[in-house]
Amino acid sequence: MLDFDFYSPTQFVFGRGRENECGECVRRHGGSKVLLHFGSSSARKSGLLDRVEASLAKAGISFVELGGVQPNPHDTLVYQGIELCRKEKVDFILAVGGGSVIDSAKAIAIGVPYDGDFWDFYSTDKTIEAAVPIGVILTIAAAGSEGSGDSVITKQEGKLKRATSSDLIRPIFSILNPALTCTLPAWQTACGLTDIMAHTFERYFTNTPEVEVTDRLCEAILLTIRKEGPRVIADPDNYDARANIMWAGMVCHNNIIGVGREQEWNSHNIEHELSALYDCSHGAGLAVVMPAWMEYVMPHNVPRFAQVATRVWGCEMDFAHPEKTAFEGIQCFRRFLAGLGMPLNFEQLGAKEEDIPLLVKTLGLGDGLTGGMVQLNSEDIAAIYRIAAHTPAM
Amino acid sequence: MLDFDFYSPTQFVFGRGRENECGECVRRHGGSKVLLHFGSSSARKSGLLDRVEASLAKAGISFVELGGVQPNPHDTLVYQGIELCRKEKVDFILAVGGGSVIDSAKAIAIGVPYDGDFWDFYSTDKTIEAAVPIGVILTIAAAGSEGSGDSVITKQEGKLKRATSSDLIRPIFSILNPALTCTLPAWQTACGLTDIMAHTFERYFTNTPEVEVTDRLCEAILLTIRKEGPRVIADPDNYDARANIMWAGMVCHNNIIGVGREQEWNSHNIEHELSALYDCSHGAGLAVVMPAWMEYVMPHNVPRFAQVATRVWGCEMDFAHPEKTAFEGIQCFRRFLAGLGMPLNFEQLGAKEEDIPLLVKTLGLGDGLTGGMVQLNSEDIAAIYRIAAHTPAM
Repeated sequence: MLDFDFYSPTQFVFGRGRENECGECVRRHGGSKVLLHFGSSSARKSGLLDRVEASLAKAGISFVELGGVQPNPHDTLVYQGIELCRKEKVDFILAVGGGSVIDSAKAIAIGVPYDGDFWDFYSTDKTIEAAVPIGVILTIAAAGSEGSGDSVITKQEGKLKRATSSDLIRPIFSILNPALTCTLPAWQTACGLTDIMAHTFERYFTNTPEVEVTDRLCEAILLTIRKEGPRVIADPDNYDARANIMWAGMVCHNNIIGVGREQEWNSHNIEHELSALYDCSHGAGLAVVMPAWMEYVMPHNVPRFAQVATRVWGCEMDFAHPEKTAFEGIQCFRRFLAGLGMPLNFEQLGAKEEDIPLLVKTLGLGDGLTGGMVQLNSEDIAAIYRIAAHTPAM
Repeated sequence: MLDFDFYSPTQFVFGRGRENECGECVRRHGGSKVLLHFGSSSARKSGLLDRVEASLAKAGISFVELGGVQPNPHDTLVYQGIELCRKEKVDFILAVGGGSVIDSAKAIAIGVPYDGDFWDFYSTDKTIEAAVPIGVILTIAAAGSEGSGDSVITKQEGKLKRATSSDLIRPIFSILNPALTCTLPAWQTACGLTDIMAHTFERYFTNTPEVEVTDRLCEAILLTIRKEGPRVIADPDNYDARANIMWAGMVCHNNIIGVGREQEWNSHNIEHELSALYDCSHGAGLAVVMPAWMEYVMPHNVPRFAQVATRVWGCEMDFAHPEKTAFEGIQCFRRFLAGLGMPLNFEQLGAKEEDIPLLVKTLGLGDGLTGGMVQLNSEDIAAIYRIAAHTPAM
């Protein structure tokens, strides 16, 4: 196991109706003027924003609103948010939504106290030194941003999707009410499930030896999604299945299950180019890219792929031909994703094989190599995109 | 799943030699005068305290010492510590040791700013409202106190062992260097392993339905100990096995794997009377009590016991006779404990069957019932002690 630091100071407030405590949570953490940040009008139509505003008003907290966050959140709205916060002297940002809204809120939080362009923190290795405190009311189990110090933003100009990270943008509190996710369309639920599995696999596939505890914890998350995922697709109002998924999504990405080991993240990087170019859902892109990445790199670490096949997917170990077991595990993952309604190939995703050179170019690897369990060059990445392009539907 | 709050703000600093960062950690969190609290002289002999003091001195932090914490830490030393901290105007307590030292440090931390007797917080439901900040350098993986808001203290007079809990006594930072645990005697290592498993089982056995994610996370911890426990007994210097155990011990008790479900804790309560009366190790007491408790309550929830038997101990499910599988799981646990060198019955522990009425009386249940998965009365508890008294050695 490698040396590590772990710090996850977010206060999690989990359960039915607990969004009604948000005003009290903001007040307790010293907020007096809130930016209420959200996405589409569904948060208004469902009555959620009304409840949030009532809770803030009851706690004596004033607020300004900024809605309109898009999936793959854009820098343009971040700039608007920074300007609004400065003008209105906002001292707390409350993100009501999923990963896109939270990531947008984090970018605004960094930008407000910073003299330069907030994009510096995404495009260079500049260290974040201050941020407006953030609270979260989560409406989809997916990105894990409610318990992480990460944020991903897409620059409209050039469609560059880049990430940043700091303990300073970990939410002060995150309110997780699984019932809020019951009204999600099946497609969004399935994208979230895929994202949670991907976050777990990105930690699971490693060259670091002797990581039994985090291996087992990762497998615990995957086994949970394997059981609960199909249940919520079949029965969207199943509160308990929603609750198990929601906690799994947080646990897998606050990194308590990923410490002390090298992590992967090539599938995320390879996917980011797809969602940046086609504006497809991140989860759908992952469903296409991640099994293709697995198929390509599996020969480099057959035992690890055989381990996940047997421990998570329940495959019978073929001791004479471990690579068969390893491959069967990947196919189980694909069948699982297809069962959730996810795409498995470029056509289903709406991507085009002829764009592969562009995708590889935008990734910006040039003659270099990526990190990860298997280091990849641009040729390798093109090969992975081609596998993804040609994967049969299931 | 039940509603819950989860908050674990401790900063974990994990890896080789990281105790040398303690001075910087204290300084960063505003400490200037430290109470260095520890147990036996082994921390001095091993050179650990010298390294700690050098790190404090380098960071410009002065300190006073209070050693001598015993297993099942006593109230008498807590009173000394409170007096010393007040006299020396200590503003930070650094616990160097295991659960006993940390729990003693937590009691002192509560007592210093409190006008009354610190024991009030252990003997009544009085709420903790202030505490001196605490840091930890952990020397044994066992109690999980490094990541919890709990403390257990034994009142010398009457040998009363009681607990308290508050987010205010969660350590600000905990330094976890697995190498520090390599020099532990096998007996202490085994007691720690037993404690970790018990902390997990106390969360695992529940009547709360639909808790897949925390079930799976608990099983992950148990599977880790099942693999790594025998390895460190056979090979005490195995850093990686020590590291996996150390993180498992923290994760299982900071409660991220126990939220949203009713918890058990009867085995702990029943055990506390043994260690209070005989001053035996808490882990050894648990090895005797917990399987006996399992045997007694198993008929009330055969499916859950069969689940742990198959998922953790690898038993073949007997679908015609699930109770046989359930019982086989308990026997696997006993064989595992015996393999670590743990006692399984009263004689091996140094307890006496004729003391059972006294043990039951001191537990103080009277005509009442305990909580937990199966509510127990005094008769039930006597029956569990009798099973523990008569369990054959393995």
